Amino acid sequence: MNAGSSGDLGRVLVVGAGLIGTSVALALRDRGIDVYLRDRDAAAVRLAAELGAGVPWNGEDHLDLAVLAVPPSAVPAALLDAQRADLARGYTDVASVKMQPIAGAEALGCDLATFVGGHPLGGRERSGPAAGRADLFLGRPWALCPTPTTKSDATDAAMSLARACGAEPVVLSSEDHDRAVALVSHAPHAVASAMAAQLSDADPAALALSGQGLRDVTRIAAGDAELWTGILAANVGPVADVLDRIAADLVAAAAALRSAGGAEGAEGGDAEAAGIVTELLRRGNAGRSHIPGKRGGPAPSYAIVPVVISDRPGELARLFDAVGEAGINIEDVAIEHSPGLPVGVAELSVRPDDADELVRRLGAQGWSVHR
Amino acid sequence: MNAGSSGDLGRVLVVGAGLIGTSVALALRDRGIDVYLRDRDAAAVRLAAELGAGVPWNGEDHLDLAVLAVPPSAVPAALLDAQRADLARGYTDVASVKMQPIAGAEALGCDLATFVGGHPLGGRERSGPAAGRADLFLGRPWALCPTPTTKSDATDAAMSLARACGAEPVVLSSEDHDRAVALVSHAPHAVASAMAAQLSDADPAALALSGQGLRDVTRIAAGDAELWTGILAANVGPVADVLDRIAADLVAAAAALRSAGGAEGAEGGDAEAAGIVTELLRRGNAGRSHIPGKRGGPAPSYAIVPVVISDRPGELARLFDAVGEAGINIEDVAIEHSPGLPVGVAELSVRPDDADELVRRLGAQGWSVHR
Repeated sequence: MNAGSSGDLGRVLVVGAGLIGTSVALALRDRGIDVYLRDRDAAAVRLAAELGAGVPWNGEDHLDLAVLAVPPSAVPAALLDAQRADLARGYTDVASVKMQPIAGAEALGCDLATFVGGHPLGGRERSGPAAGRADLFLGRPWALCPTPTTKSDATDAAMSLARACGAEPVVLSSEDHDRAVALVSHAPHAVASAMAAQLSDADPAALALSGQGLRDVTRIAAGDAELWTGILAANVGPVADVLDRIAADLVAAAAALRSAGGAEGAEGGDAEAAGIVTELLRRGNAGRSHIPGKRGGPAPSYAIVPVVISDRPGELARLFDAVGEAGINIEDVAIEHSPGLPVGVAELSVRPDDADELVRRLGAQGWSVHR
Repeated sequence: MNAGSSGDLGRVLVVGAGLIGTSVALALRDRGIDVYLRDRDAAAVRLAAELGAGVPWNGEDHLDLAVLAVPPSAVPAALLDAQRADLARGYTDVASVKMQPIAGAEALGCDLATFVGGHPLGGRERSGPAAGRADLFLGRPWALCPTPTTKSDATDAAMSLARACGAEPVVLSSEDHDRAVALVSHAPHAVASAMAAQLSDADPAALALSGQGLRDVTRIAAGDAELWTGILAANVGPVADVLDRIAADLVAAAAALRSAGGAEGAEGGDAEAAGIVTELLRRGNAGRSHIPGKRGGPAPSYAIVPVVISDRPGELARLFDAVGEAGINIEDVAIEHSPGLPVGVAELSVRPDDADELVRRLGAQGWSVHR
């Protein structure tokens, strides 16, 4: 991180002391920036302040930047209010869609020269100031969508904000942003929900055959239904387009399967129809491979070393002690529990060069290593 | 596990020394059962035998059970061949669909009295005997589908097999089985692929906004396209039905969004149309909540304690040492890396009763605990 990246942010106002606003404020405080907190809910401000997120706003104006951490639909009015009071030199928001708030701000007569739309890609399943974390945006993208009239001062201030939170600024148009999040966030949510919806009246005997694949595909379907209706409804065109394309692919796959299945089963079926299914799955392979990994670059290929562990206190500590003594760093760990049995498998991800040595060392110490 | 559960299995033939066959054989050997290995590929048999999975089959007959670990389409011929040579008292297979192999076996004139269809729900991204693991089925369901003519001896032997592998036998009809796996495995694979396919020609700038949700939804889309075409094509009706229902839900959601979006945006839109979207998301919530957790029962609610860790060898060991000293068991752990930065967050899942004590102990030792 560039140590000078937040040098031009000395005093920042955060409007909205929810999860995102409080997390932004905590991150700014960690960088020594003065933060003022404002919210219609005085209790939220008090809690955020007590957590170290800043001090309650008391009429201060002419600040360096005002961060409007309010719901998307509330952004235009909050911006107009702040600009009329001349609270700051620059303004940005954190809404997960960008075209609608910007259009709303323009319609209200806000000054778009000092405003740049922002969207930090980060969040968690909990909400409210108590869930705020200074590291919520660490290493995550932070989209910035300047309008044609936005001055570079405002964009620079928002970029400093993103970097001060440890995020990577990504500048793109609001149209490109909304299409992008429709593809990588909003449509996936609807698709996961549609898959999970098929389970809502399923026979428990069928669900007993569930595995990790189904759990992964449907994990985000647990999200708040009202909140997500609002998000989807604020990005209608791009989301509906992606959903229609996916539905068309599924209908085509179902028709091809029925055609290929025929009377003869898989092998006697229509090769061309089976080809339609294979081609969809291959496009899926390709799309999957394009998703950046957790570290931002392409997903790294770690070697996975599975180790059988017992389900008692200290077992993981013993295992990681053994790994640490070998001087090997664990890049990731996943624990597969064994339902009904007192053992599980810890899958250790290590650099491929380290795997053989790790297997040897753990095996020599009596660990049950399966590789 | 019931120590006597595999008492009636003394000598077992495994036909097919791939991932599943070798894993079954390794599990049986761990229980002291004599295993004979047979495969058209002599090298696969030699490798499996060298790994401790048993001894090469040498014409032995009148065994207790023959496990046909061959592809679904090869099951009928393998069963006929084995029954004509009177190799075993009972026969079972491991194919991931059940109606088609059973219908094929009946058409070939196999004796269904001594055969019970089986499907161990377990697997991994790798294949071949070298990937075999004795614990591959530990705690996983193992579906058994007796036909109306299957005698109880054969079913009992297959149940002993499942238990000897540490799996939980689930008895259901082949029709119910195929409908169930269409819902919990085959359709989710197609849906994940259709979502991922939308990313195959996406702008890298859009993909840069990807997060963990998208990674989870599309993870299984990385599976082998040809292999999965075969699986889907062998379960045509049930899979196509689920895909059509999901496609219809997505089309309805897209239409409702466009209707609710209108000229006024989310808030001025049609509440009835938005209600269609909310209702789909709520059904998704309900369906998601019905999926059994890793331990087989409903997903337990653990408290999650996030701890900031540095990315150096021994850091996790130090952390787990500290947890172990507190006498607290870690039920699960997930590591969130921070792309481009030398820190990450270890999210420790513990019993809710243990969380406060853990936070206190770790905090007192200088760990950065965010809860």
